[in-house]
Formats: sequence, structure tokens, C-alpha cells
Amino acid sequence: MTQKRLAFLGLGVMGYPMAGHLAKAGHALTVYNRTAAKAAQWVAQHGGSSAPTPADAARDAEIVLMCVGNDNDVRAVATEALGGMRNGAILVDHTTASAEVAREVARAAQARRVEFLDAPVSGGQAGAENGKLTIMVGGDAPVFARAESVLAHYARAVTLMGPVGAGQLTKMVNQICIAGLVQALSEGINFAQRAGLDAERVLDVISKGAAQSWQMENRGKTMVADKFDFGFAVDWMRKDLGICLDAARGNGAALPVTALVDQLYSRVQARGGNRWDTSSLIRLLRDK
Amino acid sequence: MTQKRLAFLGLGVMGYPMAGHLAKAGHALTVYNRTAAKAAQWVAQHGGSSAPTPADAARDAEIVLMCVGNDNDVRAVATEALGGMRNGAILVDHTTASAEVAREVARAAQARRVEFLDAPVSGGQAGAENGKLTIMVGGDAPVFARAESVLAHYARAVTLMGPVGAGQLTKMVNQICIAGLVQALSEGINFAQRAGLDAERVLDVISKGAAQSWQMENRGKTMVADKFDFGFAVDWMRKDLGICLDAARGNGAALPVTALVDQLYSRVQARGGNRWDTSSLIRLLRDK
Repeated sequence: MTQKRLAFLGLGVMGYPMAGHLAKAGHALTVYNRTAAKAAQWVAQHGGSSAPTPADAARDAEIVLMCVGNDNDVRAVATEALGGMRNGAILVDHTTASAEVAREVARAAQARRVEFLDAPVSGGQAGAENGKLTIMVGGDAPVFARAESVLAHYARAVTLMGPVGAGQLTKMVNQICIAGLVQALSEGINFAQRAGLDAERVLDVISKGAAQSWQMENRGKTMVADKFDFGFAVDWMRKDLGICLDAARGNGAALPVTALVDQLYSRVQARGGNRWDTSSLIRLLRDK
Repeated sequence: MTQKRLAFLGLGVMGYPMAGHLAKAGHALTVYNRTAAKAAQWVAQHGGSSAPTPADAARDAEIVLMCVGNDNDVRAVATEALGGMRNGAILVDHTTASAEVAREVARAAQARRVEFLDAPVSGGQAGAENGKLTIMVGGDAPVFARAESVLAHYARAVTLMGPVGAGQLTKMVNQICIAGLVQALSEGINFAQRAGLDAERVLDVISKGAAQSWQMENRGKTMVADKFDFGFAVDWMRKDLGICLDAARGNGAALPVTALVDQLYSRVQARGGNRWDTSSLIRLLRDK
């Protein structure tokens, strides 16, 4: 493996461990974080250096990776980073954001002779920490080929899905499939409990057949136990579903159950469940 | 294995192959079917004998198994069968029906010193044919112990879920989990296609993560291809969801997405999709 000069912008619960995998692999990293103390902590742990602005962090990097909060953060940080990037460098955005903002940043990058890939991830904090994320990439094949081995340091799978925006659109399909599925699982488990069944035993049996899902196998028992401290938070899911519903207004896809579940998540938020994990939908069905 | 005298009532797409597995295992079978020609065909293929009424078929059997259409069929056939059954024999109902009718038949059986198990199956026609059904049983443990090895001839798993009715309630949980999940998958695939993505590739990628489900892996590609000839039909799903919704009125479980999907299936029926498989929900999202 060739050592590369890289920059990583945004050291949140995802970015912090992702950047860590790159440092462990021997790449030369410059990091940036809005709260500088976090960047200092990262450098103390992993080496490399930190920079006071995205442009400074990005200046000498062959590939600049970023993972921030939402569309507005992507716009702001990407614009600043592009101001410092070299010709021919690649900007990779791991944020889950709209396909529209991906295309917008790609145009701004092109104007500065920089390449762009949208590369949202799935696998959550655990996937970021153990380097087993799934990365869905949008962009040009030759650019993808140059970045792929870097992304592979924290991924189980890195797949080019199509042109810029296709990574984000694939992530949206993922979230749409999860939203209604988790609500269905919630209704099933709540029904089982109200019917007086041993819900764990029910899940053991039906997970062998056509009702099986990753959510059933990984969240079923914690839902039965009314525990919702397992990763992806309701606030982030609402952000993602908002992106899905906006995109569907554009492409004409009907999302009746996804829209309903988005509304149900607003009720979870109203109960103070902003940081509960997405399986907390079942709480709305309980008498508490 | 001890050879047993058995009766099988109802030789539909499920019962016909299930009874066949019992014959191949060496049990002495008497079969009954409402349309007698089907029973004659079964005897020609498998040996054993047929009887003109449920009571005649059941007369000498140690275990009487049945698989018919709906609650009313269960009431009618079980009542007739009980009229002929010996003291201490066991009546096993494989029909997907309400827990209420299971309890009703169990009471009628007890009055005649006959044991009863409700034992709905999942795994569909393919599972019945290759002997790999999942059987969810309600009843008393000693009765279950006597019947278990017989049911095992056509099952991958036979599990006692609780008292009479618990088999049916477990099957309902299974159907509730499937209904919303299939709608979510439909919305995801349709979104992917309208967004211009390669939907098959999207499914390959996201099925490695938290959106994964049996339905995604086994029906995703046929849904993309607009093919709906893969087993469990919309008419049967609506029957089952009707049972779920009735039961939920009794136990207080809210089923908002399940109820919505039941309504969506009524629209599939209105388009002539009575015998399309359950994944045909996606057709409602398409412009045809």
C-alpha cells in the first residue's frame, strides 16, 4: 500500500473512528473539527496533525474525506475545503445528505478541477469503530478507482452505485426499507406481548422464516425488553427520512408508509426520544 | 418409529403434500377431501384409503390432522371429525384461523374426551412439498409430545408456543411483521427505480446491512422484474390480516401500518391480483 496524504473533516461519532482507521493504516492525516478540542484529542491519540480550517486541513491532501451533519454542513465545509484543495485531488463526502447537495458540491468541485464522490455509509457507530461499514458511492469510475482502497480501511464493502448522487439515493432506499420494517416489527412484538405470548420465543420461531429481518434478529429482543440504547438515533432517522420524502417529491415515488412512520417518529421525539434508537417506535404502541 | 393410524382432512395445496410425507414415512393414512376426486387421486398416488366424511376418516385414527380454508371450514370439519373420533385421540388443525375458533374447537374436543392442538404453518406450498414447514403449536405439553414426531415429517421446526390458541397468535405475529415489511420494501424498490438506480445492485448492497430481510433476499429481484407468481397469494394474506385485525380489537394492540397495508391489498385485489403473491404491493406504486 502506498502511503497517502489525506485530510479528514468532521470527527463526530462516525468520523473520529473512521479517521483513526486511516492513521492506523499508515496514511499521513491532517484533521479538522468544528470543536478544535476534539481534533486535538484525536491527534494526541493517533498522531498526524490538525488544522484550524477545512481549507488548511485540505491543502496538501490527495484525498479529502468529510463526515458532517446535514446538507447545510456539507455545503459550508465542502465550500471551505474546496478553497484549499489541489488540482486533481478528490473530495469524498461520507455525510448522509441529499443527492441534490451532492450534485451541487460536484459542480463546485469541477469548477476548481477537483473530483467529488458522495459516499454515505451504513453500519452505524459500531461499523465505524470496527471498520465494517458499507459504503455506497456516487461518482465517476476512474475517480472511484483512485479512492476505493482508502475507503476500504473502514469498510466491509465499497460499491460504486452510479454517477454523483447515486450513493445518497442508495442510502435513501436503505432507510425507506428500514422505516416501515421497524414499524411492522414493532406492531408484531407489541401484538405478541398483548396476546400473552412469550415474545422472545415467538421471535426465535418466526425469524427462521419469511418474516426474518436483520432488525428482528438484532433489535427484537431489546424491543421486547423496552431498551432503546443501540445506536442509530431517532433524530438522525428523521433527518434521513426528510431527505427521502423530499427526493420522492422530485421523482414521483409514493412513500405512504415511510411518510407515516416519519410522523410516528415525530411522536417519539415529542416523548423525549430524540436519542433513543430507531426501534423505539414500539413505545408508541405501549401504555407509557 | 412406530407406525400410527392417522387421518388427514383437506387435501389442498398444503394438505396434499403434507399427507404425502406421512404416507412416505410409513404411517397408515385415511384421507378426506370435500371434492372426493382429489382424495381418490391422492390414494392412487400414495396408497392408504379415503373416506366419504370427516367422521369416517377419523374413526380409527390416533391422530387426526386437518388443513382447510378458514374459521367456518375449521368449525364445520372439526365438528364432523369429532363425531367419529376415539377417546384420547388428538385433533391437530394446521389451518391458519383465529385463536378464538381454536379455543372453541378445543372445548368441543374436550367434551368428547379428544385432545386438540392448533398448529398453523409457515413456509408456503414449497415448504409443504419439501417437508420444511415451520409449525407453531398451541396446546398442552403432554399432547404436543405425542404429536410432535408425526408433525416433524413435514417440518423443519415444530415448537410449542403456549396453550390452545398460541399457535394461531404466533402465526398472526408472523403475518403482521411481513405485511409492513413488504410495503416498506416495495416503497424502497420503487423509489430506487424512479431515481434511476440499478435496483438489483442496490438490493445486493443494502441486503448486507440493517435493511436486510428474507423478503428482500427472496422477493426483491422478482419485484424489480414485476413478477408476482411466487407462492402466498394476496387473497390468503387478506384472510390472515383480517384475523390479525380482529384479534387486535380484542387485545388492544394498535396495528396502524398493518391496517393500512390490509387496505392496500384490497386495491391489489381490485386490480385482479387475488392470486398474485404478497410482494405485488409494489404494483400499486407503479404507473400501471
